[in-house]
Amino acid sequence: MNRSNVMNELGKILGPQGLLTAPEDIADFGIDWRRLQIGRPLAVARPANTAQVAELLRLCNTHGIGVVPQGGNTSMVAGATPSAAGDELVLCLARLNQVRQVDPRDLTITLEAGTTLRAAQEAASAAGCQLPLSIGSEGSAQIGGVLSTNAGGNNTLRYGNARDLVLGLEVVLADGSVIEALRRLRKDNTGYALRHLFVGAEGTLGVITAAVLRLVPAPRQSEVALCALASAGAALALLGRLQRHDPAALVAFEYISDAAMQLVLRHIPDTALPVAAAPAYALIHLATPRPGSDLRAGLEQVLAEAIEAEDCIDAVMAESLAQQAALWRLREEQSEAQKRAGASVKNDISVPVSSVPDFLARASAACAALIPNIVIAPFGHLGDGNIHFNLVQPPELEAAQFLGASETIMAAVNDVVRQLDGSFSAEHGIGRLKPAMLAAWRGGAELATMRAIKQALDPNGILNPGKLFPDRVERDG
Amino acid sequence: MNRSNVMNELGKILGPQGLLTAPEDIADFGIDWRRLQIGRPLAVARPANTAQVAELLRLCNTHGIGVVPQGGNTSMVAGATPSAAGDELVLCLARLNQVRQVDPRDLTITLEAGTTLRAAQEAASAAGCQLPLSIGSEGSAQIGGVLSTNAGGNNTLRYGNARDLVLGLEVVLADGSVIEALRRLRKDNTGYALRHLFVGAEGTLGVITAAVLRLVPAPRQSEVALCALASAGAALALLGRLQRHDPAALVAFEYISDAAMQLVLRHIPDTALPVAAAPAYALIHLATPRPGSDLRAGLEQVLAEAIEAEDCIDAVMAESLAQQAALWRLREEQSEAQKRAGASVKNDISVPVSSVPDFLARASAACAALIPNIVIAPFGHLGDGNIHFNLVQPPELEAAQFLGASETIMAAVNDVVRQLDGSFSAEHGIGRLKPAMLAAWRGGAELATMRAIKQALDPNGILNPGKLFPDRVERDG
Repeated sequence: MNRSNVMNELGKILGPQGLLTAPEDIADFGIDWRRLQIGRPLAVARPANTAQVAELLRLCNTHGIGVVPQGGNTSMVAGATPSAAGDELVLCLARLNQVRQVDPRDLTITLEAGTTLRAAQEAASAAGCQLPLSIGSEGSAQIGGVLSTNAGGNNTLRYGNARDLVLGLEVVLADGSVIEALRRLRKDNTGYALRHLFVGAEGTLGVITAAVLRLVPAPRQSEVALCALASAGAALALLGRLQRHDPAALVAFEYISDAAMQLVLRHIPDTALPVAAAPAYALIHLATPRPGSDLRAGLEQVLAEAIEAEDCIDAVMAESLAQQAALWRLREEQSEAQKRAGASVKNDISVPVSSVPDFLARASAACAALIPNIVIAPFGHLGDGNIHFNLVQPPELEAAQFLGASETIMAAVNDVVRQLDGSFSAEHGIGRLKPAMLAAWRGGAELATMRAIKQALDPNGILNPGKLFPDRVERDG
Repeated sequence: MNRSNVMNELGKILGPQGLLTAPEDIADFGIDWRRLQIGRPLAVARPANTAQVAELLRLCNTHGIGVVPQGGNTSMVAGATPSAAGDELVLCLARLNQVRQVDPRDLTITLEAGTTLRAAQEAASAAGCQLPLSIGSEGSAQIGGVLSTNAGGNNTLRYGNARDLVLGLEVVLADGSVIEALRRLRKDNTGYALRHLFVGAEGTLGVITAAVLRLVPAPRQSEVALCALASAGAALALLGRLQRHDPAALVAFEYISDAAMQLVLRHIPDTALPVAAAPAYALIHLATPRPGSDLRAGLEQVLAEAIEAEDCIDAVMAESLAQQAALWRLREEQSEAQKRAGASVKNDISVPVSSVPDFLARASAACAALIPNIVIAPFGHLGDGNIHFNLVQPPELEAAQFLGASETIMAAVNDVVRQLDGSFSAEHGIGRLKPAMLAAWRGGAELATMRAIKQALDPNGILNPGKLFPDRVERDG
C-alpha cells in the first residue's frame, strides 16, 4: 500500500473531522512551544476515542509510519514535535477530553488523556477534593502529556511527581492492542507494574489514552511566608526544621537567590521585597485539611526558633490570600523577569537535597570563572533538590555572544551535577534535545535495558521516533 | 561444561563460605514458609558482594541454570522456592546486609538487599527518622524480598507500598551486567523508570542487590482508638470523616468483623473487648511529628461527630502506649486466632475503597450459600480496600472436608472481586501459587507485555523460573 492509500485508510478510520491534512491546518502541530524545532507533520490525526487510536496505530505499525503523540504541546525539550522530513503523523489526543468519574470516597479521578490539567483540577475541586499537581503550563498541558513526561512542579515536595498519583492506565500499544488497566486499587501485586513504564516514557512505548489518578482532601487552611536567609545552607537548615515539625503540611519550599530576586524586583512592575535584603530567600507554603488555625501558630514557632538560631534573618507571613499571592509572585515571575533581563542559559538539574548548598557554591564558581560578571540567578524547588540554575547575560556582552557560550556553561554546571550524583533533567525529560546526554549519563546497563524494552514493545520503532534515545531504533517500514 | 564443572566455577567465584552443597545445609532453603512447596536446591550460593552476584549470574546465564533469589524466605506464595527437580540454584542474599548510609537531611537510607526490614527500621530510628513500612514478617524479611514483592502492610494508607519508598536501586541483570542507579534524587526524568520494573517483579527480571529508600521524620505523638460500628458502611463513613479532617495523620484504618473479633476473644488469652459488641469494629492509628497534643483533640472531635451521626456506636481511645498495644493486639492476633479456631481459607484481595461494604456483603452471601454455618471472619486494611477475607471451618465439618472446598470458596470470593474490578492478590503477589490466575485476570495485552519484557531482559529464562508466569519461558540451556 502506498502512502496515499494509507492516508485514505486513515481517513476512513477517523472520519472527516478526524484527519487534518491542509498545510495551514497542520503547521502549528510541527512547532514546539519554545520554537526550537520546526517539524513538518505528514498529517494530524484527531481520533475521537480509544478504538480509533488503536486502529490508527495498527495501520501505522503495519506500514512503518512514525506516530508522534501530542497533548498541549508544552514540552520544554521538543518531546512532541515531528521530524522535518514530513513523514511522521502527529496524533493529537485533544478530543479524548472527558472526565469520566470523580469519586470522593475512593479519592480518585478517572479521565481521558486530552483533558487539560486545569480541567482535571477543577473537576476534583468541584467534588471537594484536590488534584495535587500544579505546573506553569497547566492551562494547556493535557493529562496524557503530563503523565508521559512525569511532570513535577511546586507540590512535588508533598505529593510526589505525576507518577506517584497514577493508580491505573489505559494504553494503546504500537501494534494497536490495548492495555485496559483503569483500576482504582491502592494495593495490587499482580505482575509487573506496567503503568510505571508508560509514565515518563515520553510516548515511546505506547499511547496513554485514559488514567485513574489519586486525589487528596481539599485543604482548609494555608499559610505562606517569605524568609530572608544568610545562605543556601541556612535555607537547608530551615527546610529541616519545617520537615521535623509538620512535614505533611509543607506543600512547597522554594529557594530564590538574591540575584534572582533582584531581577524580579527590577523588571516586574508592582513587586516589592517585604523582608530585609539577604543573600537568599525561601518561600514557604503550608496547607492542610485540618480545621482551625494551628498551622499559623506552628509556623510562627518554627520561624521564631530559626531566627533565634540565626538560620533566618527576617521573615514575613502573609495576612490574607492577596498577600499569599503577592509573595508567590516573587517566585512565579522568575522566568518572565529573566526573559526581560536578556538572554539566559537554563539548567533543569537536581541533586540530593543535602547537596544543594554545595552544588550552588561549586556551580556558581565554575560559571563565574567562565564569564566575568555573568548573572548567576538560581531559584527553584529546594525541597526536592531541583534547582533551576539559570544564568543571565552580563551587561557588557551581546546576547549572541553570551548564547554562543551556552554549551560551555551547561557543561560546567553539569560537571558539578555529575560529581554530586545528580540529574541533568529533573523535570523536563529528554525529548529531542537531550538524547546525547542520556547516553552519556545513563549508559551501560541502564540504557541497554531501556533499549531492550523499547525493542520489545515497539519493534518497528513507530512511537515518537527520534525522542529519548540517542539514535533511532531501526524501522522496517 | 558439565554441571560439576559449573559447580567448580561457582566455588571459585564464591569462595569456601559462599557455596553450600551438603544436603543437610541446603534442604531448608528449598521449603517455603507456609510449607506448601517442597523444592530441592541444586546448591545455595551465598555471595559476599554485588560483584560475586554478577559473576554468578553470568555463569548461570551461559549454562542455562535457573537461579532463585531468596531473602528471608517469608513469601506467602512460595515465591522464593526452587523446583523439586534439583536443577535450580538458590541465591541467598543474606551476606549483603550493610546499611551503607542514613541521611536525615535527605531523609534517605542506602542499604543492601540482605538487610532485614527490622534492622533497616532500627537504623532509621537511630538517626531520628522512620522507615514507614511495617509487615508481620519484618524480623526476618529482607529488603531485597520486600522490594521484589512490593510489600504492603499496615501503614500503606499513609505512606504507600514498598514501591513508593524507592528512590534508587542497584540491580544485577541475567547476563551479569549491573544497573548502578543508587540515586538519592526526588526528581529525575532521564529515561524509563527502571526501578519500578524491578520492584514487584518477584526476582524474574533481575536481582536487587542494594536500594535507596525514602524516610520520614519520626513521629512525636500518636493516638489509637477502637470503634464499634453498625456496619462496614459505617466504617467507610468513619474513614471518610478522618480523611477529610487530617489525612496525613491517619497511619492505619483497620477493619475487624464481629466474627473475626470473637475468634480473638475466644482463642487468645488476656484479650477483652473494651467497647460495646457490634457488627463491625475499626482500629484507628494516628501519628504525626507535630509537637503538642492536638491529635487527641482532633480525634475526639471526629469520633464525637461520628457518634452524633450514628456512624459510630461506641469508641475508646488508648490512654497509654500499653493500651495502644492492647488495642492493636485485637488486630494483630487475627491470624493466630484463626489458626487455633481450625482450618481456614484465606483470600488476600482488594477492591476500590468505596466498594468494600458491597464486596463484604456479596462475598459473605456467596460463601454462606456454599457451606452452612461457615465462619465468615474478614478483617484487614479497609483504608486501602485490602481485606483479608478469611473463612474458618464450621464446627460440624472435619478440617479435610472443609479444605476440600477451598477452591470452590476462593472461586466464589474471586467472582465478586472481579465484578468489582479488584485484585486477587493485593499484597502477596503471584509466586508459584497464582500464575494461572495472572493469566485469567491480567491476560491479553497486559500479560503479553509482561512476557515481552521478560523475554527481553531474561531471554534464557534463568531468573526465578516457574514464578509469576503461567508457564516457563523457553530456556536454551
